[in-house]
Amino acid sequence: MDDHAHALPVFFYWLDLLALAALAASGALAAARKNMDIGGFVLVGIVAAIGGGTLRDVLLGYPVAWTKQPEYLVICLAVTVAVYVATPHVDRRETWLLWADALGMGLYAAIGADKALAADASPLVAVSTGVIAAAGGGILRDVLCNDIPVILHKEIYATVAAAGAVLYIGLHDVGGLDYETSLIIAVTATFALRAVAIIFSLSLPFYRLRPG
Amino acid sequence: MDDHAHALPVFFYWLDLLALAALAASGALAAARKNMDIGGFVLVGIVAAIGGGTLRDVLLGYPVAWTKQPEYLVICLAVTVAVYVATPHVDRRETWLLWADALGMGLYAAIGADKALAADASPLVAVSTGVIAAAGGGILRDVLCNDIPVILHKEIYATVAAAGAVLYIGLHDVGGLDYETSLIIAVTATFALRAVAIIFSLSLPFYRLRPG
Amino acid sequence: MDDHAHALPVFFYWLDLLALAALAASGALAAARKNMDIGGFVLVGIVAAIGGGTLRDVLLGYPVAWTKQPEYLVICLAVTVAVYVATPHVDRRETWLLWADALGMGLYAAIGADKALAADASPLVAVSTGVIAAAGGGILRDVLCNDIPVILHKEIYATVAAAGAVLYIGLHDVGGLDYETSLIIAVTATFALRAVAIIFSLSLPFYRLRPG
Repeated sequence: MDDHAHALPVFFYWLDLLALAALAASGALAAARKNMDIGGFVLVGIVAAIGGGTLRDVLLGYPVAWTKQPEYLVICLAVTVAVYVATPHVDRRETWLLWADALGMGLYAAIGADKALAADASPLVAVSTGVIAAAGGGILRDVLCNDIPVILHKEIYATVAAAGAVLYIGLHDVGGLDYETSLIIAVTATFALRAVAIIFSLSLPFYRLRPG
Repeated sequence: MDDHAHALPVFFYWLDLLALAALAASGALAAARKNMDIGGFVLVGIVAAIGGGTLRDVLLGYPVAWTKQPEYLVICLAVTVAVYVATPHVDRRETWLLWADALGMGLYAAIGADKALAADASPLVAVSTGVIAAAGGGILRDVLCNDIPVILHKEIYATVAAAGAVLYIGLHDVGGLDYETSLIIAVTATFALRAVAIIFSLSLPFYRLRPG
Repeated sequence: MDDHAHALPVFFYWLDLLALAALAASGALAAARKNMDIGGFVLVGIVAAIGGGTLRDVLLGYPVAWTKQPEYLVICLAVTVAVYVATPHVDRRETWLLWADALGMGLYAAIGADKALAADASPLVAVSTGVIAAAGGGILRDVLCNDIPVILHKEIYATVAAAGAVLYIGLHDVGGLDYETSLIIAVTATFALRAVAIIFSLSLPFYRLRPG
């Protein structure tokens, strides 16, 4: 497993920051729905952006990423303040929230799986870590806002994150593709699958209750 | 404290997996009440099953158990998928959820207390860790489902978990009984007490509000 | 950063215990609103009192404070039982909850920031850690009680915690004031600001929604 890079190459560093910004925006948009003040925007935005990665690092025994890289918080601050200032004049914020969430989720699933493999976890643990990293920030955001988590909504979500992590592991660890290519393919496919799910309201079959 | 075993003997390994399966089933049954898809079943089932143990390990500074033992996740997957497939034809799922929860809770209280003592924690810290390990997964499950946690329902719950942890510490560390016997007695007593509480709707006196 | 003390001097040790007791009381008062039994009082009280410090320690990689200092739990137990016994005869518990919360929050913001700086975190990370330590217990308490977190209410809250952490860092690390004086000033100012916010229902401008 010595080819699992612990540090992201430059291109992915920027992709990581993009995912962070997207999730911070999703948190600020959730705060907007609850008519919070600027402090609430910043707090929910930060939790949404760094929550999944924090869970991932704590579970795997890594130092928590954002405590070592202050630029993460600078980006969260900038994005949430920008959303506070700009979005009262923007239409269809619900839709933007879903898309920002989808973008951040796609990248974090693959990176989460990779970090787990680098810590010598088994593939199944790596997939779970990927799902937690991808969905954790959004779940904490929704719990904080007293909303029903997006993950319980009707479009497929956890399943998409799991598929992204499986695809990454398949390409890189089974298929032998290099890190960059595997990550790009997995992220693109995850985002595309979630996009299709949002656009066409795709869902897996729901559980049918009998009165019991 | 050198007689606190860090590894469970074979019999308890299987008991641990049984508790895990019971809590995973409780999570899947909670997902069923919310009519989630299969992804939601697996996610809530995994959180319910490993949530308490994860909190316990993070608080005590242990490596998180399930990241080292992939069979935990295999069992969660198998159980939640089985509940998804089988339970639409099962009556009284509410009742099954309570019993599955009670079974998992009984074992985790004693194991949680034991792991804390093995990390040189004081008895009071060990009891608290036992309660967190026993009740944590169920609380996270209910928060995720936007339900009022079972622990706030009318039957005694946290108190039962605390009693189980106290009993274990009393038998093993004060009374000098061996590990296996202490664990069996504590688990049986905890489960029996919770069972009595469920069957007879036992509760401690509730707080009486004056308008204030 | 070698003048960041890891151990609190005697005076602050007692102030720390006072903040702990105040937050435990806030948890017990929240449990009272939900008419829980004594087990619920103790559990919610403990989570409110130690939740923020636990998050702080896990994020920074410290051992979790309360697992090493059993007197924390003794105080939580004593306070929550006292609230259970005494407060049915006390008026205006809502108001007491707010004030207990404000007192605990003031101290934890400054201590949280200081612990982060002692772990060589950047100032921005230290402010975030201070806010998490100050607000985390209250947020977990409210999530557990299925309430909307106090932090989303109309008076300024997260912003006050951030201001307290910034003030402490400014006095101690930029201004060069000694640890004790910086802490006393920051705690007093934070509590006073929150008190003013509560008394006069101060709030920052709220986000104005357009239908979107």
